[in-house]
Amino acid sequence: MLYFDFNATTPLADEVIESIKDALTVGWGNPSSKYDAGLQARMLIEEARNNVAACIGAASRDIIFTSGGSESNNWVIYSAVENYEASCISRSESGETYRKPHIVTTTVEHDSISAPLQALENKGKADITKVPINKTIGEIVPSDVVAAIQPNTCLVTIMMANNETGTIMPIREISSAVRRIENKLSSSIMIHTDAAQAIGKIPVNVNELGVDCLTLAGHKFYGPRIGALYVKNLNNKTFHPFILGGGQENGWRAGTENTPMIVGLGKAAALVRDYLNDYTVAMEDSRDYLEIKMAEIFGNKNITFNCKSPNKLPNTCNVSILGKGLEGYKVVKNAKGFCCSTGSACHSGNCEPSKILLSFHVGKDVARNAIRISTGRHTNRKQIDSLVMELRKVVDDLKTTVEKE
Amino acid sequence: MLYFDFNATTPLADEVIESIKDALTVGWGNPSSKYDAGLQARMLIEEARNNVAACIGAASRDIIFTSGGSESNNWVIYSAVENYEASCISRSESGETYRKPHIVTTTVEHDSISAPLQALENKGKADITKVPINKTIGEIVPSDVVAAIQPNTCLVTIMMANNETGTIMPIREISSAVRRIENKLSSSIMIHTDAAQAIGKIPVNVNELGVDCLTLAGHKFYGPRIGALYVKNLNNKTFHPFILGGGQENGWRAGTENTPMIVGLGKAAALVRDYLNDYTVAMEDSRDYLEIKMAEIFGNKNITFNCKSPNKLPNTCNVSILGKGLEGYKVVKNAKGFCCSTGSACHSGNCEPSKILLSFHVGKDVARNAIRISTGRHTNRKQIDSLVMELRKVVDDLKTTVEKE
Repeated sequence: MLYFDFNATTPLADEVIESIKDALTVGWGNPSSKYDAGLQARMLIEEARNNVAACIGAASRDIIFTSGGSESNNWVIYSAVENYEASCISRSESGETYRKPHIVTTTVEHDSISAPLQALENKGKADITKVPINKTIGEIVPSDVVAAIQPNTCLVTIMMANNETGTIMPIREISSAVRRIENKLSSSIMIHTDAAQAIGKIPVNVNELGVDCLTLAGHKFYGPRIGALYVKNLNNKTFHPFILGGGQENGWRAGTENTPMIVGLGKAAALVRDYLNDYTVAMEDSRDYLEIKMAEIFGNKNITFNCKSPNKLPNTCNVSILGKGLEGYKVVKNAKGFCCSTGSACHSGNCEPSKILLSFHVGKDVARNAIRISTGRHTNRKQIDSLVMELRKVVDDLKTTVEKE
Repeated sequence: MLYFDFNATTPLADEVIESIKDALTVGWGNPSSKYDAGLQARMLIEEARNNVAACIGAASRDIIFTSGGSESNNWVIYSAVENYEASCISRSESGETYRKPHIVTTTVEHDSISAPLQALENKGKADITKVPINKTIGEIVPSDVVAAIQPNTCLVTIMMANNETGTIMPIREISSAVRRIENKLSSSIMIHTDAAQAIGKIPVNVNELGVDCLTLAGHKFYGPRIGALYVKNLNNKTFHPFILGGGQENGWRAGTENTPMIVGLGKAAALVRDYLNDYTVAMEDSRDYLEIKMAEIFGNKNITFNCKSPNKLPNTCNVSILGKGLEGYKVVKNAKGFCCSTGSACHSGNCEPSKILLSFHVGKDVARNAIRISTGRHTNRKQIDSLVMELRKVVDDLKTTVEKE
């Protein structure tokens, strides 16, 4: 079965698998122990930290390993609120009245951002503003982000690239704009980007982006199922630990380090640092070829590509094959030779179109028919040919079924 | 170098390594995906969940995989406070005045319990009572726990076995006693035990213990660096998610599952389920032999075993070799052929005796000299002979140094 769901997860690179296997036997010591077994593990972890840092242009001391992108995202939100509360305590001593923290985000974030924000709002612990996608441009527009900022805004969190459409957000421009308004308000706003879908596909440099925090998730770039968090100038005045206990990760995250997975993450990051351009070219070639073939086989009138922005990941094709009875989940369900995603959430047979696609202003009927095909480092044109041929067949079969009904 | 620090971490069992290696290649699919690669991963995870559940006599549906013991412990505390707050909101509607939540714990918990509790207390968000070790019995006494309970107590969290001394706490008796007072107060108290040090060494059965929640940490029983949390009758009225996002782990913990490590944890749990008795016998044999040899070589008058309770783990020997200049950290530092732990926390050359040992009423001078030798499944008498011989030499050398000074 051909795999075209690399935005959902990637297999581990062979080099990553080897590094994890090695570490399972040589890196099992407790990294906090002072003797050889511990020192060996510590060394492996610090080497991995250097690799992750180099992959995003960061200082090693600003990288914390986490259990994954979801933890990283939850943590940033937690820390921003803690930091706001702490500064409010000092302000209230000078007689200022309390306003709850305010967070700016978008309508198209990953669940691990939108769910904790929703929970804060539901509990009355924060106000949230969700900036919508600009309908003309198909992206988040910096001026809309700036317009959302209030004196009590403590966090702006906007994904670097969207998982469903592949749309790349103008994080650098957003950061610059937020910094200007921050200076005017003389407030302190943390800027975070969830770069889970960007790393391994496009260049990611924390300094160029101008962000304070950035989320990495290993399994999106041929690494293991852990993650990391970049925090600029990590210090305990503005950033707050989430999991407390032993002093691991320089006191930032408790828990004996998952050395083998950390080693694997480091290796995956080193591969991206060294071969990103090759990966991008390969993914883009197969994705672009796919889009040409789709247009050829189905005709331009009968398909719609759902990323409206020219700024998009090199590997993501979110496409709807138009017509009655061609819902994405049906197309995917009927395909036997390949797998990919739909944005639909199906519960007991009832399938709703992806809320994210609707937020990208994709019409309901088009969104309902969407499938997401995401290519990988080794996807080739021959695989794309097979995919498109089977798609054609599946669609023809579904059309016949509709006609019979 | 002979390893005698199995309470700090264990190597991975060969079977565990093999299972992780396999899963790295066959289990990489996203467990939330409906196609083969995803279903295969999902199947592996559910098999692991069954094994973990069986290992502690729980239902599979009550097991959640976490990133480790520290996360599990932090989560339980978070959830207990959330649950208390939620019930207070409903009570305050009926006119009751608010009291902040109260938590009962002990003076000898692991940092991943004591640190988050301390943070809550520092922020004024909870009151904490730390029950001390009974000086005569050397354990936590159920009646002391009961005496600490207040009408606003929402959580009792007491470790099953102490990592430094190996002391096993009477959790079953504590649970029964708490249940009785709970009925009297008609309140709802969550009972949690951190069983990180117990699993793989002594039988652990959640029903016999009568606890609501229990923490597991893979790397203490020859498994990988992840953990799990048992929660009795998991339901979202009384238990609250900590990491929010995608609906993984039946909505209880967001984040794409770390399948290979989960598979490894399942295998490690299956080994404990099947061979616990063999492990216990082997560890106890080497530990008991060690204690006999220590007494033989140093003389009963010159050593003190620091676990005063007869209820102790089969593998842990916390011993102080008495005398000036024989501080535990010096003994360990000078040993070249073996490694073990001291409880001392050394900062810039200044070593303080373990606070935990002091809380077990071990005198300051004795605590300062303590070393913790913890044996493993394959520790044998020959290794113990080498250990004791080298210890003798190290101690003689240190004595000579003191005499010269």
